[in-house]
Amino acid sequence: MSQTKILLEESEIPTHWYNVVADMPNPPAPPLGPDGQPIGPDALAAIFPNAIVEQEVSAERWIEIPEEVREIYRLWRPSPLFRAHRLEAKLGTPARIYYKYEGVSPAGSHKPNTAVAQAWYNKQEGVKRLTTETGAGQWGSSLAMVGEMFGIAVRVYMVRVSYEQKPFRRSMMQTWGAEVFPSPTDKTEAGRNILAQHPDSPGSLGIAISEAVEEAASRKDTNYSLGSVLNHVLLHQTVIGLESKKQFEKVDDYPDMIFAPCGGGSNFGGVAFPYLADKAGGKDIELVAVEPASCPTLTRGHYAYDFGDAVGLTPMMKMYTLGHDFVPPGIHAGGLRYHGDSALVSQLYNEGLVSAVSVNQLATFEAGVQFAQTEGIIPAPESNHAIRACIDEALRCKETGETKTLFFNLSGHGHFDMASYDKFFSGELEDFEYPAEAIDEALHHLPKVG
Amino acid sequence: MSQTKILLEESEIPTHWYNVVADMPNPPAPPLGPDGQPIGPDALAAIFPNAIVEQEVSAERWIEIPEEVREIYRLWRPSPLFRAHRLEAKLGTPARIYYKYEGVSPAGSHKPNTAVAQAWYNKQEGVKRLTTETGAGQWGSSLAMVGEMFGIAVRVYMVRVSYEQKPFRRSMMQTWGAEVFPSPTDKTEAGRNILAQHPDSPGSLGIAISEAVEEAASRKDTNYSLGSVLNHVLLHQTVIGLESKKQFEKVDDYPDMIFAPCGGGSNFGGVAFPYLADKAGGKDIELVAVEPASCPTLTRGHYAYDFGDAVGLTPMMKMYTLGHDFVPPGIHAGGLRYHGDSALVSQLYNEGLVSAVSVNQLATFEAGVQFAQTEGIIPAPESNHAIRACIDEALRCKETGETKTLFFNLSGHGHFDMASYDKFFSGELEDFEYPAEAIDEALHHLPKVG
Repeated sequence: MSQTKILLEESEIPTHWYNVVADMPNPPAPPLGPDGQPIGPDALAAIFPNAIVEQEVSAERWIEIPEEVREIYRLWRPSPLFRAHRLEAKLGTPARIYYKYEGVSPAGSHKPNTAVAQAWYNKQEGVKRLTTETGAGQWGSSLAMVGEMFGIAVRVYMVRVSYEQKPFRRSMMQTWGAEVFPSPTDKTEAGRNILAQHPDSPGSLGIAISEAVEEAASRKDTNYSLGSVLNHVLLHQTVIGLESKKQFEKVDDYPDMIFAPCGGGSNFGGVAFPYLADKAGGKDIELVAVEPASCPTLTRGHYAYDFGDAVGLTPMMKMYTLGHDFVPPGIHAGGLRYHGDSALVSQLYNEGLVSAVSVNQLATFEAGVQFAQTEGIIPAPESNHAIRACIDEALRCKETGETKTLFFNLSGHGHFDMASYDKFFSGELEDFEYPAEAIDEALHHLPKVG
Repeated sequence: MSQTKILLEESEIPTHWYNVVADMPNPPAPPLGPDGQPIGPDALAAIFPNAIVEQEVSAERWIEIPEEVREIYRLWRPSPLFRAHRLEAKLGTPARIYYKYEGVSPAGSHKPNTAVAQAWYNKQEGVKRLTTETGAGQWGSSLAMVGEMFGIAVRVYMVRVSYEQKPFRRSMMQTWGAEVFPSPTDKTEAGRNILAQHPDSPGSLGIAISEAVEEAASRKDTNYSLGSVLNHVLLHQTVIGLESKKQFEKVDDYPDMIFAPCGGGSNFGGVAFPYLADKAGGKDIELVAVEPASCPTLTRGHYAYDFGDAVGLTPMMKMYTLGHDFVPPGIHAGGLRYHGDSALVSQLYNEGLVSAVSVNQLATFEAGVQFAQTEGIIPAPESNHAIRACIDEALRCKETGETKTLFFNLSGHGHFDMASYDKFFSGELEDFEYPAEAIDEALHHLPKVG
């Protein structure tokens, strides 16, 4: 049997992040301000450090990773690339299946890759305090951990439904010294307005973002930090895809298809973007964003300007959206409950350079259990989306006899999601189909532009 | 800064386990049967496969690891050795601190190292079903995972206090297809008798062992599998210490002191025994078993023959014991709540070749939080015992200026122990001192031998 884990040395951690903007056929559509005009970098400077603002608008292909960030990366990076020998055998597929395992980070997912960078740049510019949102808790945990390491106070607005489903994510954040509140809260105007209309609101990433942004904008000592969606976040996550390319070289293989869960897009962009350069150069590779059928942004949303948050505090971005006030059902992949998507992923999808599929909740848990029973690791519900799509393709290969190389990003472990697995086993989980009428309805909720 | 992680290739996974019996100054005291006479290997064959029984009594220095076991090891082994740069800096110690991280296994601790081997030998001999006990759930999870991989059904008796503290360990075992019951249960005579006397019994490892052994002994298709204490279990765990020796060679360093938590002894034996050979050869190295002050087997127990379980179903072993019917307080390091200890560890302690310290619960959580806030990983409460003792030594080095090399086994992560961390933060945890009168009382509970 060939190798199970393909490892890299610490010295092989990439020295630069890859900026996909340099290889896009068209420049990114600009974010717009309340007046419908493109905003300048200074509009972002109220809540982000300058270094981050520069990265957000940069078109440079390679951006250097600060040595202090690489120092912290070395606590868990490079992450291993696994060949899923046992899953392949169980499926009886001729396909070769690989997965990159980001659950080796102390916070248990890929999210620290950008948390370290964001905290570092904020620290460099003297920021003492950060606010943020979190869905499943993976992002909030990550920022809490590195906030503690860099001596920055962190306040987390955690989507209420996840706060209740995953109490131990809160404990984890508190162990790393962060404050955590279930969102919507009564601490912000955004939260109070939503509670007044929907006292039982389960919350959403969009709402939690509104709260965190509102607080950061209103306090001079405080910046905001976002776990996905924006260009700089996807940039930092490319360390995943870049490492994986070195790892595939070591075993003289290369993926035909890449699968990653897609909520705000940082997981997908992080693993897929470094391969997009090859695709632009003529390589035959398919990059598949996998999203929940209950929140099918790319596969069923509108490609239009919309707000990044629920209330409309952020600039408008051109992206696939289900409407900024769409509150997705309380599915158990909290990290994917987002109405919109990264503008970069959206534009590349619109131009046909990346593809997308949606999968049902129950089918994702079935895939996750099959994975756990063969490969050992119990995956996060978000990751189960990629596993589902990858297994489906592996089974198609079994029918056709194709020996494709399939690669997915195992973005995190499910140690804080066992209550969801319990519900899956006891038959309490259900599938939610995004209603056909909602897509027309969403049109009326999009902000008017131009 | 020098390397953070010292890694090995899969090809460097040891090919043989190390059997410390070959290097002990005296042969191990034999286990005794109910008649007070040494038992033969056949007495063990009712509940263990022959290959395991042979290992239990072997004096061979090196025992080959089957290729099929190494195949599964490759899902997470070799485990990384970390240099704790950030913890050292925080403590301001001149000591060099290293830790081996066994939490990289899918079950989250060192326990799968022996679970794989035990399940494999049972499968080889046609066994279809295994029973076992579990305290904190780390061992039960591990056996569940490999049982699923090898197609063996697993039933777990989980100590009730841990079952209640850690519901998601149960979910994890169920994801890997195992049955789990809180012990004492009404499914065995041992359990029913204890419930009759103590309906609110929190359970103990000793009681759960009684239940699992009773069931295995009464069913022909079923064997028993133990997660610690016995010689073959410690043997399998030596893969940890053996790997760490190769890793220290790569950075041209060698430990002056090794710390590991000690409940049944497999964690401590696994990391420390391979160094005992060097100590026997004249190396100056101190091997420190760290136990809870509330269950201080080595530091305050009697060195005497006693049963391995609560009821007296097992052979008697010469070991440090607090009395087989001692039910330790419900501290949050469930893996260390054991009245006795490995006979090998006990004999080596008695002969002065290994040392032991006991530490208080609150101090262990303080150490664990300090570790999490510097190194990132949130440790299991069991591991916090080793961290406490190691930090104490590092602080002593700070006083004296000694540049010692300190090494501890980070036996697992604390992702399923966040409720305990919550209680620590909210001030609900307390220290339990083992009462002075209990040690005399225990004398009267020891079985009469010879």
